[in-house]
Amino acid sequence: MKGPRGTQDILPGSVEKWQYVETVLQDICNRYNYKEIRTPIFEHTELFQRGVGDSTDIVQKEMYTFEDRGGRSVTLRPEGTASVVRSFVQHKVYGSPNQPTKLFYFGPMFRYERPQQGRMRQFVQFGVEALGSDDPAIDAEVIALAMNAYQELGLTSLKLVINSLGDKQSRNRHREALKQHFTPHKEELCEDCQLRLESNPMRILDCKKDRDHPAMATAPSILDYLNNDSREYFETVKAVLDNMGIPYEIDPNLVRGLDYYNHTAFEIMSESEGFGAITTLSGGGRYNGLVEEVGGPETAGIGFAMSIERLLMALEAEGIELPIDEKLDCYLATLGDEAKQEAAGIIYKLRQEGIQVDKDYAGKKMKAQFKAADRLKARYVLVLGEEELQNNQINVKNMETGEQNTIAIQEVVQHMRSELKED
Amino acid sequence: MKGPRGTQDILPGSVEKWQYVETVLQDICNRYNYKEIRTPIFEHTELFQRGVGDSTDIVQKEMYTFEDRGGRSVTLRPEGTASVVRSFVQHKVYGSPNQPTKLFYFGPMFRYERPQQGRMRQFVQFGVEALGSDDPAIDAEVIALAMNAYQELGLTSLKLVINSLGDKQSRNRHREALKQHFTPHKEELCEDCQLRLESNPMRILDCKKDRDHPAMATAPSILDYLNNDSREYFETVKAVLDNMGIPYEIDPNLVRGLDYYNHTAFEIMSESEGFGAITTLSGGGRYNGLVEEVGGPETAGIGFAMSIERLLMALEAEGIELPIDEKLDCYLATLGDEAKQEAAGIIYKLRQEGIQVDKDYAGKKMKAQFKAADRLKARYVLVLGEEELQNNQINVKNMETGEQNTIAIQEVVQHMRSELKED
Repeated sequence: MKGPRGTQDILPGSVEKWQYVETVLQDICNRYNYKEIRTPIFEHTELFQRGVGDSTDIVQKEMYTFEDRGGRSVTLRPEGTASVVRSFVQHKVYGSPNQPTKLFYFGPMFRYERPQQGRMRQFVQFGVEALGSDDPAIDAEVIALAMNAYQELGLTSLKLVINSLGDKQSRNRHREALKQHFTPHKEELCEDCQLRLESNPMRILDCKKDRDHPAMATAPSILDYLNNDSREYFETVKAVLDNMGIPYEIDPNLVRGLDYYNHTAFEIMSESEGFGAITTLSGGGRYNGLVEEVGGPETAGIGFAMSIERLLMALEAEGIELPIDEKLDCYLATLGDEAKQEAAGIIYKLRQEGIQVDKDYAGKKMKAQFKAADRLKARYVLVLGEEELQNNQINVKNMETGEQNTIAIQEVVQHMRSELKED
Repeated sequence: MKGPRGTQDILPGSVEKWQYVETVLQDICNRYNYKEIRTPIFEHTELFQRGVGDSTDIVQKEMYTFEDRGGRSVTLRPEGTASVVRSFVQHKVYGSPNQPTKLFYFGPMFRYERPQQGRMRQFVQFGVEALGSDDPAIDAEVIALAMNAYQELGLTSLKLVINSLGDKQSRNRHREALKQHFTPHKEELCEDCQLRLESNPMRILDCKKDRDHPAMATAPSILDYLNNDSREYFETVKAVLDNMGIPYEIDPNLVRGLDYYNHTAFEIMSESEGFGAITTLSGGGRYNGLVEEVGGPETAGIGFAMSIERLLMALEAEGIELPIDEKLDCYLATLGDEAKQEAAGIIYKLRQEGIQVDKDYAGKKMKAQFKAADRLKARYVLVLGEEELQNNQINVKNMETGEQNTIAIQEVVQHMRSELKED
């Protein structure tokens, strides 16, 4: 029997990387004072229709939607923002005096797509949302957090691309310009783009099929249609990024796949060679208006999400070894039935006192136990044989130096504590 | 819009408890040398039909089962063991020289039940599985790990109950005895138990409806039907627990809800007053045979699962305060536009160097910024006003002692590092 297509098991040997990355991301969020939020794996389908957008590929083609036993339509979350915003509204978090509300999440998301490298049906996203501030400095903070996270993990081949999608007025003007620009070429565009021309012409700029159509290069840039407020907003975001010393490129064709974005949009790409076709590591932007869409009061918002699978791919592409401790503190080897029985009490005590220790549970002979200790990369092997047991002693061998000590069984916790502290 | 019934959002303020508990559980697993495994949220439905058992309430009534867009029946995992075993078989983990394979998992599970206190439709389980050993000492190890986890978190009102369900031969003999015993009372039993009398009479002992029927008290005990091997196995498990100094009670009526258990079965209950109706904190046992059921080679197995929701309820019932750090290292307050802009670069640098710092993003006046710092429990407030900025300085106030220092902006990282180290 196999796990479902497009999902994966993360086994010991790989899981340590996930754990490490998670710890670093939590630590970064702690420094930036973003707090964790955990929302359910599934939501009422309506939430994503409203919060992600009915016209998006995600909602139209990619969601795991089903009826629960009570006949309600529910959907495995395809992304994190809608759920966070729903939770923010439901629990009236906007009423707290600590605004903006700075949140992060970490967990599995689900999209029914054709699986390929870096694109799974169940994938893990880490994301950040700052709700309740329209200070351009928080746009920069959110971008800085993402960049900081990658850098902390050791990535260097990174490219930050930013754009402004402007406010509603700016977008409407740009939208009309795009329509005028592309309408003469309508028949030459792909089917999706012909629809987009009506529903959301900005998305044409993001189309992979029509990427090389000559009309793309000459398409009107949103940056030429920003009104004063929007332009000033974008200028301040850039100034704060400059102030932080974070380099970026501006790409007026950077639009985001979701309906609710405005003002700042950004993506971080890996520029590492051999990283593969999908180079985007994370993307995000401002989504003022989404909180209202989900039934809450007018609230500004900005956030981003990153794929952990792609982050791990980028680490691999750059040849970065994460500092993972694969060692085992102690292995207790025993000889004879009596020692074996005694061993259970000894390792229980060691473990109670915080010491990592394992023993054999497969009836191995002494030599095979030492081999097992080697495979488990034990720092120390404790040996309890018949002779030791008679003398109420235990032998402690430092596997690195070869040094051996015979100590009283009662002193084993204290002894191992001080040995391990020295390491 | 609300989250689905029977699910919950875990928000800042509560999430810290979850994080803390998770860290402790991971640490305990590390001491016992159990490694994490992460399996998908959903599996092919067939896995649970085979691995949990077609006749169980879980499979018959409680699963979130649906067809994916490719027409395959998938199910949100209702428990963790079947998935772990599937993964163990699929990736041929049994072929590794390090046996037994000692694994733990932590994550959401799903059962469509009537929500009540301590029973959610999405709930979180932590669980442990040891595959590949039939040494009774590992049964005791798994039990010890669970007890150790609760104790480490501070719980004291715990009761460990154990039983043996014996091997197949013992169970068959017991099964016949149960049939003979209950058949004369068939009509007096509940509908479910009338079915159980044929399919799995041992489950009658676990029935909540028939609990007070006089025939229950006189029902034949499995312990009287254990053959020699099974009795000896159980005696050794008890001897190892004694050796560890872990107290337990024996309850011959303790049977587990899932089909595949044999030999050791155990539950840990909270005996804390006012804990509520569901006192079971965790349950587990041996399941030799499950790996074969899922398509792998004959492999012994034992494990347990605990509900994190109930663990948190037990902590609350015992009035245990978890040691959670709610403080913020630094808050940077600014006065004037220029200082505000400068602030972004300063906090970015502090954060890059591992220091936790936040600032205002809501246009607050100086006094309100100090109030915000208070609410966030800031240890230090850094003040950057117009005067400080002119002198390229920053003011650092220790909020506990009231002590203030004015230092050069370039020295802020170094200064804060040494201040925070002293705390």
